Amino acid sequence: MEFFDVVRTQRAMRRLKPDPVSDEDLWTILDAAIHAPSGGNAQGWNFIVVRDAAAKRAIGAWYLDGWNKVYGRNREAMLANEAMARTFRSADYLAHHLAEVPVLIIATQRNNRGADLSAGASIYPAVQNLMLAARALGLGTTLTTLHRLHEQDVKDLLGIPADADTMALIPVGHPRGTFGEPSRLPPEKVSYWERWGERHERPQT
Amino acid sequence: MEFFDVVRTQRAMRRLKPDPVSDEDLWTILDAAIHAPSGGNAQGWNFIVVRDAAAKRAIGAWYLDGWNKVYGRNREAMLANEAMARTFRSADYLAHHLAEVPVLIIATQRNNRGADLSAGASIYPAVQNLMLAARALGLGTTLTTLHRLHEQDVKDLLGIPADADTMALIPVGHPRGTFGEPSRLPPEKVSYWERWGERHERPQT
Repeated sequence: MEFFDVVRTQRAMRRLKPDPVSDEDLWTILDAAIHAPSGGNAQGWNFIVVRDAAAKRAIGAWYLDGWNKVYGRNREAMLANEAMARTFRSADYLAHHLAEVPVLIIATQRNNRGADLSAGASIYPAVQNLMLAARALGLGTTLTTLHRLHEQDVKDLLGIPADADTMALIPVGHPRGTFGEPSRLPPEKVSYWERWGERHERPQT
Repeated sequence: MEFFDVVRTQRAMRRLKPDPVSDEDLWTILDAAIHAPSGGNAQGWNFIVVRDAAAKRAIGAWYLDGWNKVYGRNREAMLANEAMARTFRSADYLAHHLAEVPVLIIATQRNNRGADLSAGASIYPAVQNLMLAARALGLGTTLTTLHRLHEQDVKDLLGIPADADTMALIPVGHPRGTFGEPSRLPPEKVSYWERWGERHERPQT
């Protein structure tokens, strides 16, 4: 696929079929992930590919608990909000069906120097490469972090050492829906030129 | 360009020509940035495009001070290390020539809830989209965070409000060198399957 077509049509795909994803496709998206930059080219990343049914059930239960704790109390308000309801329903679907997703990829990062706003600069570019590559192959993904409310449980289950943090959990599967342009504010609304608050005219094309 | 060709040949380009970058190219890479995902689709991002010579000189001086503080004392050791020397020299070049780069893009994020390992999950995917799009157009970039040692100075200079953090500074310009595959460990070395430490055989192709 053409690069800009992939970028333009990547959106969170949270309703995924249980159909298996091929090893070949998984290696291809991991190849894309490791081509991303990381600070000092340290490559402190690891990617754990989880397909085992029992492991997915355990992770799915922790994820659902995280979902309920963070979003459960807002359920009525979210569903009543027209702008939010669609995304909420799809995220709620994922939280209740995570164990049915064929593959969960957990991206870890070693040697974080404690909590820092920019810690993710060396892992989320790789996660984005992985998700874009999945989209190029017709596979759906979404970047999630709710498992972090049970991070130690996930680490114990998968044998992840103390010096590695689980930075993202990415469900991967064939999508039930179709890809398409996500809803976003255009760059004219979120970019400033020279100084905060200053707009720049975009030539008509 | 084909998607996987872009991903495979993105590498940090730190030696950039002073030649201007067109507005059209800048809008194209900003378009790519805003198509990235962010948690709850909150789009807490802003992108400040800096081309003003005086602003670049001020930011360049702060950046160099950050570089010297973090890497200056390791200079001899880095240059003596064959694996590190090439990257060190190019990062050192950038630190001394930042003001000559035609465009600096500062990616900010609003409403961070304090330092958190996963805070970057909602901004670095957009930064990666921006850098991949630049590469697709033949423009060089690299993800830097050293300006953060002088973050308040940068915020004061550009009028960035208190609730926005500067998450990345991305120099953008026409590269002096050529794009090519970066040096990385292959996915066979950094992926585990089902459990930390467990390898999976990759089919020969």
